[in-house]
Amino acid sequence: MADVNELQIKGQQAKRALRKLSSVSAAVKNTVLLEMARGLRQNRESILAANRQDYAEAKASGMSESMLDRLLLTEERIDGMAKDVESVASLPDPIGKVFDMRTLPNGLHIGRRRVPLGVIAAIYESRPNVTIDIASLCVKAGNAVILRGGKEALRSNAALAHVAQAALQKSGLPETAVQLIENIDRAVVNDLLKMRDVIDLVVPRGGEGLIKFVRDNSLIPVVAGGIGVCHTFVDASADIEKAAHIVCNAKVQRPTVCNALDTVLVHKDIAGLFLPVMARELNKAGVELRCDPLSFAVLSKLDGLMLVPAADADWGKEFLALILAVKVVDSLDVALEHIANYGSGHTEAILTENYTNAQRFLNEVDAAAVMVNASTRFTDGAQFGLGAELGISTQKMHARGPLGLEEITSYKWIVFGNWQVRS
Amino acid sequence: MADVNELQIKGQQAKRALRKLSSVSAAVKNTVLLEMARGLRQNRESILAANRQDYAEAKASGMSESMLDRLLLTEERIDGMAKDVESVASLPDPIGKVFDMRTLPNGLHIGRRRVPLGVIAAIYESRPNVTIDIASLCVKAGNAVILRGGKEALRSNAALAHVAQAALQKSGLPETAVQLIENIDRAVVNDLLKMRDVIDLVVPRGGEGLIKFVRDNSLIPVVAGGIGVCHTFVDASADIEKAAHIVCNAKVQRPTVCNALDTVLVHKDIAGLFLPVMARELNKAGVELRCDPLSFAVLSKLDGLMLVPAADADWGKEFLALILAVKVVDSLDVALEHIANYGSGHTEAILTENYTNAQRFLNEVDAAAVMVNASTRFTDGAQFGLGAELGISTQKMHARGPLGLEEITSYKWIVFGNWQVRS
Repeated sequence: MADVNELQIKGQQAKRALRKLSSVSAAVKNTVLLEMARGLRQNRESILAANRQDYAEAKASGMSESMLDRLLLTEERIDGMAKDVESVASLPDPIGKVFDMRTLPNGLHIGRRRVPLGVIAAIYESRPNVTIDIASLCVKAGNAVILRGGKEALRSNAALAHVAQAALQKSGLPETAVQLIENIDRAVVNDLLKMRDVIDLVVPRGGEGLIKFVRDNSLIPVVAGGIGVCHTFVDASADIEKAAHIVCNAKVQRPTVCNALDTVLVHKDIAGLFLPVMARELNKAGVELRCDPLSFAVLSKLDGLMLVPAADADWGKEFLALILAVKVVDSLDVALEHIANYGSGHTEAILTENYTNAQRFLNEVDAAAVMVNASTRFTDGAQFGLGAELGISTQKMHARGPLGLEEITSYKWIVFGNWQVRS
Repeated sequence: MADVNELQIKGQQAKRALRKLSSVSAAVKNTVLLEMARGLRQNRESILAANRQDYAEAKASGMSESMLDRLLLTEERIDGMAKDVESVASLPDPIGKVFDMRTLPNGLHIGRRRVPLGVIAAIYESRPNVTIDIASLCVKAGNAVILRGGKEALRSNAALAHVAQAALQKSGLPETAVQLIENIDRAVVNDLLKMRDVIDLVVPRGGEGLIKFVRDNSLIPVVAGGIGVCHTFVDASADIEKAAHIVCNAKVQRPTVCNALDTVLVHKDIAGLFLPVMARELNKAGVELRCDPLSFAVLSKLDGLMLVPAADADWGKEFLALILAVKVVDSLDVALEHIANYGSGHTEAILTENYTNAQRFLNEVDAAAVMVNASTRFTDGAQFGLGAELGISTQKMHARGPLGLEEITSYKWIVFGNWQVRS
């Protein structure tokens, strides 16, 4: 009950902060963000010290390598966070923009004006940079945010949230626009998910378990995502070297995140030539290949590869590690069917020189991002030019794909009348 | 369990129909809609006959006048439905529109392409025209829909859904793109709300009880609304005759719907002159006034009015009847505070000649529609030029205000690469 009270207080503080934040100018919000970036650089040592404690404890508790990589902060990553915050500051303020303005036949002038979404609750795991990504986006879009990171990153998140709060305070804004829940009891999340009177949107970021828990228990609208079972289909007409390079980039450039590649589907007409080139490049990066019988037959002739026959469970699996499922398919149709069955609606790509196949892939694949001749790793708020991202939505409601600034706003209809009545 | 199986079958049929419908051209979808409008006119007598049965049964069971009015179909209302369907047909097809297309610094061309939202479940009460509104909008936006109307309108809804299905079939499309659940057991709704694998969005339309039930029990994203506690603030500078006319229109033009006026707030400086003019006009229309002490003091001097002292429960109440709460306020600030406390986020209006007050009202009121010098009755998909509406959202996620065509779509990011990899 004490938790609920603490939560209710945080909720009311967030609502009050929202009223203030939703009416301040872009200039003031940008000042906060630049101060936040400066604060990250100035407090780098203390942030790293907090992160080292988190990391050591997580390592001692036996956390997996992929999770440890998500938890780790480095000078470079902190600098990247500061740069992302500056990039958010440099984006146009979405708030106040009027769109769809028109005059109705009865003379009413109506349009929509973009407004903050409200109070956002973000529930996430492991990666502490999420704390700053979300805080900076929420401040810029005029939203208040309640953060609930994973317990393994508690010290790192507290250090980062402190930087955000100090930046708000320095600019004369309520620091309660960004609040961190430091109570690590999971029951707190459940209580938070019931606060429909205070919170407008819940964004869970993390593993399947967390997302399912949030979707199953929330009485508040949820934008969920983050599970990325990503496929790349290498069509018969693909350029072999370039395609191998893209597959390798999509798999190894950062294997522990949701837009990393999980399954490559290879057209049978190119499999004999393509698979060895791809496999050698992936092998250099230490990737294990889980192969269907056809690809296994081709690749087992080569020496030194890490080959495993694919199990049924490997299709549709998000590996988050240097593992890639490989399958040879008869046609584009079979590839489309495989993606429809096993994809998670995150990012799907085709590598091809065939115009019609590229168009069909774009038209027929139902996912947040559908790509031709590019690495799935590009599905990302910063990469898409949205600044940072609050998460990646794999649902169709509200927003799909990276949740940048505009995606965490709402709008209201504004109506300028001339004393009209409805007849 | 039999219900769940029937629901699962309907769900799978909807998904299959969706794949077909999401890829047909605007021309084909418009053919379906024009056929639907023709079908409504051709089958008017059988629809009215079905409605007469529903109406007689509801009346015998003691349904309230306001609910009976919602249930009633007339030749005029059916013709209005047909015209609304034709108006939807004449709207531009939202599907396939590409927006935010841009070239990133690395040469990737990215943009968003509008796609259907998916399978929509609509759960509604009483008003049978909702069946056609929703079916026509869903067909136009390429969505499949599962309809669950109120049991009191079952025969009417079945007759109307049949018209929609016949129109689909005649155009060579699966009639399962529009399905009606005829099982009146409320447990069916609960089962429906768990079908997250099949249904993308739930739209409840009806009373507070229905909406709360859906929001409390749905595992599927919900866009809720329909509860309209609407205020109009008559500022000191308002034109008295015009303001009285707008207040009367907002209250009496159709008192049983959500955008009808519930509370009028009157600036103290104009109350003495305005209230009698307003009260006489409202009295002619049979409106009961529930007055705060100040307005009661003014109006009790007049003869023949239906005056009742307001109870606490009258503030923030959606009357859905010829009843209006009346309150005198000291200032715009007090009016804004009252609206913030008692409004439901639907529609709020100010009547004023003061430019600054109009701007402040537009800026500071947080509602789906905020109006200057117009009747709250205008918040409506057709009135706003969106064609018909699937509902009115009073939440901030996904869409706010009338849910027209664009509001029941999603988008996907499309990425045209040139073999780029992420560095």
